[in-house]
Amino acid sequence: MADENVDYIVEEVMKRISKRFQITVEASGRHLHLTREGINILFGVGYKLTKVKELSQPGQFACSERVSLIGPKGTIKNVVILGPERSKIQVEISKSDANILGIKAPIRESGKLEGSAGITMATEKTSLTIEEGLIIAKRHIHLSPQDAKLFNVCDKEIVKAKVYSERPLIFDDVVIRVSSEYKTTMHIDYDEANACGYIKGSTAKIMR
Amino acid sequence: MADENVDYIVEEVMKRISKRFQITVEASGRHLHLTREGINILFGVGYKLTKVKELSQPGQFACSERVSLIGPKGTIKNVVILGPERSKIQVEISKSDANILGIKAPIRESGKLEGSAGITMATEKTSLTIEEGLIIAKRHIHLSPQDAKLFNVCDKEIVKAKVYSERPLIFDDVVIRVSSEYKTTMHIDYDEANACGYIKGSTAKIMR
Repeated sequence: MADENVDYIVEEVMKRISKRFQITVEASGRHLHLTREGINILFGVGYKLTKVKELSQPGQFACSERVSLIGPKGTIKNVVILGPERSKIQVEISKSDANILGIKAPIRESGKLEGSAGITMATEKTSLTIEEGLIIAKRHIHLSPQDAKLFNVCDKEIVKAKVYSERPLIFDDVVIRVSSEYKTTMHIDYDEANACGYIKGSTAKIMR
Repeated sequence: MADENVDYIVEEVMKRISKRFQITVEASGRHLHLTREGINILFGVGYKLTKVKELSQPGQFACSERVSLIGPKGTIKNVVILGPERSKIQVEISKSDANILGIKAPIRESGKLEGSAGITMATEKTSLTIEEGLIIAKRHIHLSPQDAKLFNVCDKEIVKAKVYSERPLIFDDVVIRVSSEYKTTMHIDYDEANACGYIKGSTAKIMR
């Protein structure tokens, strides 16, 4: 085979391998997950949330219902509710949002709510205050078991992830979450998205 | 000398060397620099800005005067003016601010304003619109020539900088700026500060 053909094949293989190791980045805006009881209080007993958009993680969806978050310093209106219902109310905001509300929210993995911050949620008619459940989501990478194998990482592992963009940076302390229910995606919040020059389609690479 | 004494000395030397290589990080809020002509228009001919606070960079100071920034989508009130006067008006905001204003501002080094975005500045009485001068400041490290030597970097060099915090990350693409007028400090904006868990006293280390 001619040398230039070999060169071409090597380059193509390298390109495709490299592409395979790119993870799609998604910026998560502020949102909340409600319990059945929370929905009963905020929207009425037995109320059913209105699904409007499927999210990248299978089974997760955005609803048309909105609430306001009320803190001692400020209010954030029009916050989206994500379904389905959960066993605990969880409200996820950015550090900027926490500053607007005037609440010291901890950086936590989803579900780890013990000792997290309290928050008041309100609709036009009523409100609900929780003592804990408000967090700044810790950046993380969802991986399917197949992709975890491909990337050679395991559940709960902490890795670095480089984001490719106009404003590149390497996120340290990124937690890996593996489940057969996940689609491989890296999740950051909007402070992180703005800091790394995120645009729709930005990708990241796991580094060690 | 006893082995434990040597251990102690080595540890102390390592600690102090490591400390010496830490750079203080500062988060810059949105601000603007005005020209003499800009001050004349916004505050009156011959008006003298009122210095209220010295900044870390020698000769630079915050003023008590404030302006609003007005964009097609929103307004940001109460934006601080930094002195002294400059030869060109320069308005520095974060990506979050750009989103609030509804203006696509480029990421630029200070002073590189050609083809940057336009903005309207307003006081209670009057306003001033510039065609270019609005930027998102590119993260950078000010270094004195002595410290540049110590860190083995030169003016305009691009480095990585790791920020130590609860939410550690490594900023890629950080520009080095060396001048005898600088005090050694790393400057990031508030999106970046929130993304890296910045608190007053956070430090960074140059990496290669």
